[in-house]
Amino acid sequence: MSNTGFKDTITAAIKAKKTHICVGLDSDYDKLPVSVKSSTGSISEAIFEFNKKIIDATHDVVVAYKPNVVFYAAHGTDGLEALKKTNEYIKEVDSTLVTIADCKRSEMKRSAELAGQELFDAFHFDSFTNTPWFGFDTIEPFLSYEGKAVFVPCHDSNPSAGDIQDLVLEDGSKLYEYATNLVSHTWNKEGNVFIEAPLTYPDILQNMVNIAGDDEFFLVVGLGAQGGDIDKLKMFEKNKNFTVSASRGIIFASTDDDFAEAARQKSIEYRDKIQDILY
Amino acid sequence: MSNTGFKDTITAAIKAKKTHICVGLDSDYDKLPVSVKSSTGSISEAIFEFNKKIIDATHDVVVAYKPNVVFYAAHGTDGLEALKKTNEYIKEVDSTLVTIADCKRSEMKRSAELAGQELFDAFHFDSFTNTPWFGFDTIEPFLSYEGKAVFVPCHDSNPSAGDIQDLVLEDGSKLYEYATNLVSHTWNKEGNVFIEAPLTYPDILQNMVNIAGDDEFFLVVGLGAQGGDIDKLKMFEKNKNFTVSASRGIIFASTDDDFAEAARQKSIEYRDKIQDILY
Repeated sequence: MSNTGFKDTITAAIKAKKTHICVGLDSDYDKLPVSVKSSTGSISEAIFEFNKKIIDATHDVVVAYKPNVVFYAAHGTDGLEALKKTNEYIKEVDSTLVTIADCKRSEMKRSAELAGQELFDAFHFDSFTNTPWFGFDTIEPFLSYEGKAVFVPCHDSNPSAGDIQDLVLEDGSKLYEYATNLVSHTWNKEGNVFIEAPLTYPDILQNMVNIAGDDEFFLVVGLGAQGGDIDKLKMFEKNKNFTVSASRGIIFASTDDDFAEAARQKSIEYRDKIQDILY
Repeated sequence: MSNTGFKDTITAAIKAKKTHICVGLDSDYDKLPVSVKSSTGSISEAIFEFNKKIIDATHDVVVAYKPNVVFYAAHGTDGLEALKKTNEYIKEVDSTLVTIADCKRSEMKRSAELAGQELFDAFHFDSFTNTPWFGFDTIEPFLSYEGKAVFVPCHDSNPSAGDIQDLVLEDGSKLYEYATNLVSHTWNKEGNVFIEAPLTYPDILQNMVNIAGDDEFFLVVGLGAQGGDIDKLKMFEKNKNFTVSASRGIIFASTDDDFAEAARQKSIEYRDKIQDILY
């Protein structure tokens, strides 16, 4: 356990700012408020201006931002410039805020090194999501990236997540249980390999928390538009090592000119509810 | 089976050009010949010039090119411009050549639509690799993209591929066998969802070919530097629906000024060997 910089930063911020909230910056250009689109010259500018206003309005009530990379890459290199600028801006506003690339990668060896170069160096992310499908080769290169972390989705929040992840193994356990155990107790050698888990499947989430143990850190997804029940976060009463992400539920709480204020209010509502439940 | 444009194009090219070869454009900037780096002004230009020379030297003896996206994204938007130009150039040279994005994606619903927008529209790919980890949600949006295809790695070629993919299920089958069956016989509803499989594990590859049946199309990986045995491709004697990819073994066959000619010679060597085995 020697590379705990990421976990130290986010857990200190969770305590200091009294919030567990992560904002999913799934900044879908098609859904941006008309006022943002009409006052900017390009897709890149519009997305960055939108994100900037969301960050300005929420940075003191959240601990993390999680852009889904494809919402930027869909617009080619122009969209990706907005992503880079967004990550830079987050750190300018508050250097204790962490960024999580929602990109579900699976690279290995040399290509994993290059994924680190891309996500950590070129795009300034602190962490990213990485599937377990190809095994430890896709995790190992990231153990030693100082202050950086990897989140492994062991069970996702989407309807078909169980097609593969709920399969029953020969010992009667489910695949997601096996993966959660493997990630927490074998792959997390240095303290920077974490679990992504679904609020939309609370029984599964509870299993995962039990299996992973108190040292693990969780990115819980599915709050907000996906319908996860915030009250179920009570299961983290003992181990408070988690951040919970909402995307559309925060950034598109309003699609009118008051979108930034609406995002702030929704973030505060989630923050306060979770504080009530856990503290 | 109504969206077979991709398969029709590549299988026609395999017959017409008498080759099954796919060139993996893992164009690692650090390994480019000095002459290419010194004659170009930027990383983007160097990578594109290198790819252009490889394509000029190989296009008539291969059917597909498979850039691994991270080799470009590692250099940020500059590197990604080289990727876009490479894909455009491939089609200029021969419109029957297909491109495969090696990117191991796992997006779903709206984010899958945007992945299509990114890979098919912004970067001009014909197909891409997509993990099965999150289930059918990550495949379904691509069934209807006319002429486009998805390759699902059901067992990969890397050393730790078996960490998850070789797990034994309650019925005694292995997870990769289950995934191969699921992809071929359930997910491939429209004729454009294919299997990525490893030449480095020939017994596993044989199993996958048996399970998938004759209608499936395969991207076989691991020829060349990864050490896959070309003679094992004899198992495709009946079902010849495959392309086999080599990356470093072709593009870095020489790292001197004769790199393009060396790539051509290596592609011809592989092409002829496979023709001898299968026809």
